[in-house]
Amino acid sequence: MATRKATAAIIATATCTGVGGFFFGLSFKDRDRFLVHAQLKDVLQPSSLAPPANSTAAVFDAGALREKNSMISPSSPSPSPTAVATVGPHRVSEIMAYGFPTTDYVRSRSDYVLAYDRKNRNALWVAEHLTAERLLDRTKVSRKLSAFQEDQSVHPYFRSTNEDYRASGFDRGHLAAAANHWVSQDSLDETFFLSNISPQVGVGFNRDAWNTLEKYSRDKAKSNRSVFVMTGPLYLPSLEQDGKHYVKYQVIGPNSVAVPTHFFKALLCQSATGEFHMECFVMPNKPIGSTIRVTDFYVPRDMIERAAGFLLFEGLPRSALKTMNGRKV
Amino acid sequence: MATRKATAAIIATATCTGVGGFFFGLSFKDRDRFLVHAQLKDVLQPSSLAPPANSTAAVFDAGALREKNSMISPSSPSPSPTAVATVGPHRVSEIMAYGFPTTDYVRSRSDYVLAYDRKNRNALWVAEHLTAERLLDRTKVSRKLSAFQEDQSVHPYFRSTNEDYRASGFDRGHLAAAANHWVSQDSLDETFFLSNISPQVGVGFNRDAWNTLEKYSRDKAKSNRSVFVMTGPLYLPSLEQDGKHYVKYQVIGPNSVAVPTHFFKALLCQSATGEFHMECFVMPNKPIGSTIRVTDFYVPRDMIERAAGFLLFEGLPRSALKTMNGRKV
Repeated sequence: MATRKATAAIIATATCTGVGGFFFGLSFKDRDRFLVHAQLKDVLQPSSLAPPANSTAAVFDAGALREKNSMISPSSPSPSPTAVATVGPHRVSEIMAYGFPTTDYVRSRSDYVLAYDRKNRNALWVAEHLTAERLLDRTKVSRKLSAFQEDQSVHPYFRSTNEDYRASGFDRGHLAAAANHWVSQDSLDETFFLSNISPQVGVGFNRDAWNTLEKYSRDKAKSNRSVFVMTGPLYLPSLEQDGKHYVKYQVIGPNSVAVPTHFFKALLCQSATGEFHMECFVMPNKPIGSTIRVTDFYVPRDMIERAAGFLLFEGLPRSALKTMNGRKV
Repeated sequence: MATRKATAAIIATATCTGVGGFFFGLSFKDRDRFLVHAQLKDVLQPSSLAPPANSTAAVFDAGALREKNSMISPSSPSPSPTAVATVGPHRVSEIMAYGFPTTDYVRSRSDYVLAYDRKNRNALWVAEHLTAERLLDRTKVSRKLSAFQEDQSVHPYFRSTNEDYRASGFDRGHLAAAANHWVSQDSLDETFFLSNISPQVGVGFNRDAWNTLEKYSRDKAKSNRSVFVMTGPLYLPSLEQDGKHYVKYQVIGPNSVAVPTHFFKALLCQSATGEFHMECFVMPNKPIGSTIRVTDFYVPRDMIERAAGFLLFEGLPRSALKTMNGRKV
């Protein structure tokens, strides 16, 4: 408890106003659950557009779309919760076993699936499926061989570029973590598409607290049959001095890439015996540090869902969950 | 020109900082077109969440979804640009003859089509198809019989309510204008679904400048074979004193309904001889007044597309356009 308070104090120092309208809405109708998570009130808080030519059709370089990164038409993915290290098209139905939160602008990579938010030039959500065996051998690939690159499958009007990040002060932060996809050099390379990248505060966040949460996810994969991971940016409102709630976020570069105020990660862990346990996290895009307890960043599932505008693992009956954020449900 | 300057002065007085990052991006790569519209720099400028119970499936009252307002699965709408006052399912393919900008969360009403932005609790876009004959007889319906009502087809997590607007200071502003849908009482009533409503400044905007633009659209329908209308909210960045660009917008009510900083309207007019003429407008959600010239609010088509995150009338070959904002293309 002392640790938790200390962590909260560190983060409160790094932030300014409080989470505002988001928790206002939460407390309004769901006070009990809100109070359980009241300590988060202190730690979570919030802080387009350029051109080519005439013909839209001509501008969109469809030929540049890598064939292997084909856009998929999500039908009904067959549930396959047991973890086998497969490759190829079946991998999508494994990763998306519990449903697509949205279906517009979905991109399917060899080891993760992503939906793109064309208005904010960030991903909307990124889905992964981690297993111990996929995380075992890290010797056959090298991060040095990977380079950040534009996602050619995104229309130029809506694409983020390396130029957007230059001198912005923000890291190019992975959503599907690079270290989750060492299964092949191709899989690793694909995490460097800028559609999988968001502007993140470097010191104290991307390189620290967020990295700690990513490691936590991998540890969960090693102690479970597998872990389904949903990750994404959030743009949360905060209460300002005029008593009103505002969403405010910076945009960077010629393409006005949005800087998310927060990021979420939802883990759906299936144990060796087949039981499901879910954990939901939200972290502010601020310096936090690496000596955090990730469980201090637990949030109610519906907090993420309401803020993100979609449901998480909708295909899994809620009655199938044994625990949520470490508590029996 | 004096009128234009006067209008700009009025709006500049009513706003504060300038359109910022959006035009920054625009000027960066498309300076020529930007300069044409430079006067807009002075007039355009920018100013989550509550619960039910456990099971998502149970919470979503699917039964409450009106059958007649069925969610459609947009395939390839057949082009039918000639205007005949039909009703029923064919109406959707008429309205959407030139393509769906997005396909998630589309709702098809008897006389308009809408895509819902679940994150902002506003529509993403609303599509209409206006013809002179549909606008003729206004005697058989009454606006007094229509009432603002929640859209039961939207999940409660993402739905806006009348409660959200109460004491907010904002009008419940129509996107598909009520006065465009007098063809039947049902059609009129459907424009009062809150999914078709955005928080708008009342005096000077919703009741004045925006209303003038809506009237302009109907006038266009009377002087053309038909007019395809796309309307929607925008959230534009502005330059702040720290030299950075931010998107900032208020959210209102228990459900954190976003207050758009701007609204766009794109008109695709097909003349009696079959020629296509397009006009694109963006207005700030601020007091502007009713004595405006709507053509002072012309913007380049791609300004709307980049800001909104989708393309407009993508199904119409750009070579088919005779004029854009009154100029030959």
